[in-house]
This record gives sequence, structure tokens and C-alpha cells, in this order.
Amino acid sequence: MDVYEALYTTRAMRRVRPDPIPEEVQRKILDAAIRAPSGGNSQTWRFLLVDDKAVLAQLGPIYRRCIAQVWELVYKDRLDAAAAAPDDPDHAQMLRVQRSAQHLADHFEDYPLMLFSFAQGDPTGGSIHPSTWSAMLAARAEGVGSAWTVAFVFELPAVLEILGVPTEEHWQFGSCVTFGYPTGRWGVAPRIPVHEVSYRNHWGTPVGFEIPTPLWSY
Amino acid sequence: MDVYEALYTTRAMRRVRPDPIPEEVQRKILDAAIRAPSGGNSQTWRFLLVDDKAVLAQLGPIYRRCIAQVWELVYKDRLDAAAAAPDDPDHAQMLRVQRSAQHLADHFEDYPLMLFSFAQGDPTGGSIHPSTWSAMLAARAEGVGSAWTVAFVFELPAVLEILGVPTEEHWQFGSCVTFGYPTGRWGVAPRIPVHEVSYRNHWGTPVGFEIPTPLWSY
Repeated sequence: MDVYEALYTTRAMRRVRPDPIPEEVQRKILDAAIRAPSGGNSQTWRFLLVDDKAVLAQLGPIYRRCIAQVWELVYKDRLDAAAAAPDDPDHAQMLRVQRSAQHLADHFEDYPLMLFSFAQGDPTGGSIHPSTWSAMLAARAEGVGSAWTVAFVFELPAVLEILGVPTEEHWQFGSCVTFGYPTGRWGVAPRIPVHEVSYRNHWGTPVGFEIPTPLWSY
Repeated sequence: MDVYEALYTTRAMRRVRPDPIPEEVQRKILDAAIRAPSGGNSQTWRFLLVDDKAVLAQLGPIYRRCIAQVWELVYKDRLDAAAAAPDDPDHAQMLRVQRSAQHLADHFEDYPLMLFSFAQGDPTGGSIHPSTWSAMLAARAEGVGSAWTVAFVFELPAVLEILGVPTEEHWQFGSCVTFGYPTGRWGVAPRIPVHEVSYRNHWGTPVGFEIPTPLWSY
């Protein structure tokens, strides 16, 4: 697969089939992940695959409590506004994201594979998140959908205990990524265009060009 | 370019030619960046390209002070150990990374293009670092090398003032990425193999397979 197709079409895929992810694909996902950069090339990271339904059964109720916290503590204002005027395009988009993310929570135990990532001494995320994104791009190349979530931060001690993470070694939770063969279609997700979120040399100075439509499309 | 070639060969490229990065390539880099995921798809990010030598001249001395702090505060123990036994393979690798990173600092003003990224409300980095990594992968596809650095965190207020970042809006510095056409060759960087940094279902439980050599190579 062309690198641009992967970069443009790896959107969150939360509606997936329960079919297992073959070991050959899991190898490609993890071997791509470890090629990513890390601070000082220290590679102080750990990747924990979870496909045991007994573990997912322990994590599912926790995740559903966490996602409820996300709606209540992070997105409450936006969701209230959206509920008051659901036809506004931005609000409709917010409600779609919520429905999709809630679907993930409601079906947490049904995903065939998850990837939990951890790092030591990585306050910025620069040492762990690129590897996670590489894992998702490699999955895309294999036809496997993924979705990135950090909602577990609301009940992290319980999660770390279930997964057996040695907290005395100061491993920090990076994210949880769900994997699965998608039921929907791949596509280029809508985005605020480059010239609205980019500057040149000084904040507020136009970047110097406009990109009204995606530079790559099917 | 195949997605795996990009994922496997986008290693830090700090030795580059001063030739400018064409606007067409800059467009591809930024348009790829904004396709990355962000928390709740909020896209509360800003991308600041810097190619004005006057701005780089202001930032260069700051960056060199920051990298000195990195050696002194982050890597001192490892560098002392490496200096005491430079022939040990791990130490030699650490010293190579240091020489390369110091080269970046010493030649900061010579890079033709840099990308500073910022996010709002992104404590984990999950909303900004994937976009940065996408920018670097797109650059790789165009033959442009890149290097990721967060060393500016040691003197952030001065950097934000030079770049005009409205700190009252709580924009967080993500990273600084240098771009340039490399003088060296692309290649697959050595990594600790997957089975040494991965587990399955519980911390410490083997992931179930070994990957002694990279799954992709030239």
C-alpha cells in the first residue's frame, strides 16, 4: 500500500467484526511499531497485546466507567451544546464521534485484539505515540481497522493491576488501541484544512498556500 | 512509496543539505499531518513552519543551551558510563546519538525548514504526536529527512515569545522537527526486537512469537 493511502485513510474504525487478527498480521503491526523514533533512541517502551477474553471482561466495565467520565468531564459543554442544536454540522460531527466512541465502550469485550503501550521517562509522549501510530498504519496496510483511546487514564491503577504493570518501575500508560476487521468502508476523514491551522515563521502569519481539498484521494 | 518502506526507513536524518524544501513538498507534509487522529477528532492543533533565517538565528543559541541541558540533566549518567567504556556496543550507540544530536544543535540555523507543533488540552501527546510522525513519514516519501526534538522544553518561554505563541490560550509545545535533504543514506535503524519489548495479556508473559530480523528490508 502507498504510504499516502495509509496516512490519509487510517481513520478510527470502531465497528469491527469479531474475527481474530492472524499472528502474521500481529507480527507486522508490532515490528512496524518498534521502528518508530524514541527520545535518544532509548526504546524504553513495552507493547502489551491483549486477546484473552477473560482479561477484556475485567477491563470492559472499567472502560465503560471511564468513557462516562470522558463525556461528563471533558466533553460536557460541547455535548450539551450539540444536544441543543444537533443539526449544526459541527455538533452533528461531535455527536457522531460520541456515538462511535460509545459503541467501542459498549462492545469493548468483542474486539479481537488490543494493544496497550507503555513508556518510561516520556513526559511529552514523543517517545511512545509515534510507535502507536506506526502500529495503526501497519494495521491499515493489512486491512485491519484500529481506534486509539486514552480514556483509561480515569481509572489507571485498576487497569495497571489487571495487566500486571510494575508501577514501581514508573511505566507510564501511553494508550489503548483496539484492532479489528472493519464492517464499514475506508475513507478520507474530513479535516480542518491546512491553511486554517498552519502559520509560517510567526503565529498568525499565513503559511503561504491554501489546500482546499485533500492532496490524496481515491 | 510503500507504507512499510516509509515506516522502516524514516530514521532521524540530522545531516542534511541546505537546499530549500519546495512548496509542493511542504504542502504534502502538512496535508498528511492533518489526516492524523486527535482526541475526539478535535483538531485543536497548530503547525508552524519556520524557514526565516532571522527566526532561526534567534532560536539557535537557545537550542544549543537546551541541548547542553539535555546532556547534563537527562543523559549524564549514560554519557559518563559511555565515556568510561566507549567500545561497549550500547555505549557506542549512545555516543553516536549524542554526536548526531549535537550536530543538529551546532548547525541549527542551517536547516532549510522546521515544523513546530502545538496542541490545546493534550496532556498525553496523543492528539499532536501522531500528526508530527505523519509529517515525517510524508517527508520521507518525498526524499526529505527529518529529526524530532523536544529539547526546547528547557527554555520554552523564550521560544514561545519568539514564535509569537499566545500562551494565554494554553497552547502546549509538541515538538520541533527539522527537515532537509539528507547527505547520508536511508536505512533500517537497529532496534531491540519485538519479543524483548512485548507481552501478551499480562506483563512479563511472552508475546508468543519472535522476530529476530526486521520483517521489511531493502
